[in-house]
Amino acid sequence: MTLRLAVVQFAPAHGNVDHSVQRMAEAIASTQADIMVFPELATSGYFFVEPAALRPHAMPLSHKRMDALRAASDATGRTVVVGFAELDGDVMYNSAAILLPGSNPVVYRKTHLFYKERLVFAPGNSGFVVVDVPGHDCKLGVMICYDWRFPESARCLALQGADVIACPSNLVTHIWRKVMPARAVENKVFLAVANRTGAETVGGETVAFNGDSVLYAPNGDVLASADATADSVLVSEIEPAATRDKTFNAFNDIFADRRPEMYSLDAPR
Amino acid sequence: MTLRLAVVQFAPAHGNVDHSVQRMAEAIASTQADIMVFPELATSGYFFVEPAALRPHAMPLSHKRMDALRAASDATGRTVVVGFAELDGDVMYNSAAILLPGSNPVVYRKTHLFYKERLVFAPGNSGFVVVDVPGHDCKLGVMICYDWRFPESARCLALQGADVIACPSNLVTHIWRKVMPARAVENKVFLAVANRTGAETVGGETVAFNGDSVLYAPNGDVLASADATADSVLVSEIEPAATRDKTFNAFNDIFADRRPEMYSLDAPR
Repeated sequence: MTLRLAVVQFAPAHGNVDHSVQRMAEAIASTQADIMVFPELATSGYFFVEPAALRPHAMPLSHKRMDALRAASDATGRTVVVGFAELDGDVMYNSAAILLPGSNPVVYRKTHLFYKERLVFAPGNSGFVVVDVPGHDCKLGVMICYDWRFPESARCLALQGADVIACPSNLVTHIWRKVMPARAVENKVFLAVANRTGAETVGGETVAFNGDSVLYAPNGDVLASADATADSVLVSEIEPAATRDKTFNAFNDIFADRRPEMYSLDAPR
Repeated sequence: MTLRLAVVQFAPAHGNVDHSVQRMAEAIASTQADIMVFPELATSGYFFVEPAALRPHAMPLSHKRMDALRAASDATGRTVVVGFAELDGDVMYNSAAILLPGSNPVVYRKTHLFYKERLVFAPGNSGFVVVDVPGHDCKLGVMICYDWRFPESARCLALQGADVIACPSNLVTHIWRKVMPARAVENKVFLAVANRTGAETVGGETVAFNGDSVLYAPNGDVLASADATADSVLVSEIEPAATRDKTFNAFNDIFADRRPEMYSLDAPR
């Protein structure tokens, strides 16, 4: 059974949650897709270097300012992955909400913090999250932006059975394009990178985002891609179950061939 | 301090160890390099599907048929990585000899066996090996061919401090080119892929090798590359110590940012 996997590339408004939420709710309503992936921190905007500045734009996973997104997900039956600034008590996380139509949402809190994110966010403590996509034979995992650089991120998701990895992003470099296809190939999974466009300036420092959102096939091929600056919705029809046979000949299975007993990944430098 | 890193691409003679050893000894004598990497199973040739057929071409790490290579390494001061069929008691391994001028050689036994290799070889039990390069401020790690597909291989080497990863290979696909740069980038190491050319036919089945040997910089750039069919020696001058600063801004260090406590890499599928 196929499903339609989408990424939405746009420039969230800095510090205007209601505006961006409304815009995303409209995209959910108008896009023919089963899974939709929006960028990292798509509610709040990205660049905050003081907790007090971010705090008004952060919220718990269950909060009325997310209601328009949950309602759009429920109404359309689409599973939605959207980056947001999560407030948990007094702590803020760079999180992704996984909105599951007809079910409670699930949160992933970014494991590896990039640059000045650590001035405002705590390191994620959710672990890597994989969910069943309601109504479809598909398991969906989430990593966020800089998590790409650590092969352990996608590996943890794929070992939990992810067929599709969503990667809400605010990518500011280009080097990720040399590595992201590997995340698909080495795990034989689909990979949806939703990057944002535009730039944000805080305290005289400007951070620019590169767009180039992309959907990768399990062999690393590009199924669809956006350009560097345009608002874009990419949709590809995929067969999630195709990821589950990890063999490629009668002798090799890229998961069964792993030898965790030989790996010393905690080794000191 | 820089050093000269070389890969040698050629077609080893199938089942003619003395011929290939002599040829490699001549390459060691004539190449101005400090580290030289030859292909996987460069002594014996690659394609054997019956232990009895391979056995005459296998040998222990310390064996007179390796003497010409060790002598060339000692005489020139070059560290040499060369794939060979290793015999240990009655067991054969797909191994790489790391010949260290003035010191005893070290062996790495391939962790992940490809295709019909498992008909003749035991899975490697050496773990991932990193050595100090005599006379140079450089740590050298080795993985072999199909090990590329598992990010854990290069990760284990880099976490042990490898500045350079040698990858003796007999690559028969092209998909590795989408992934190999990631092994350099995600670990910030140099990577030397020594592939072979030619083809071998056993029992009516032909295996063809794709050449395209390559030296990668720590940012994934290609420093030097060979074509698909020609005998080639690639040499690049590199600065091994450049790999040791894993930071790329004031906040991020790609090794310090790892969070092994969040990784569950033994998880069942």
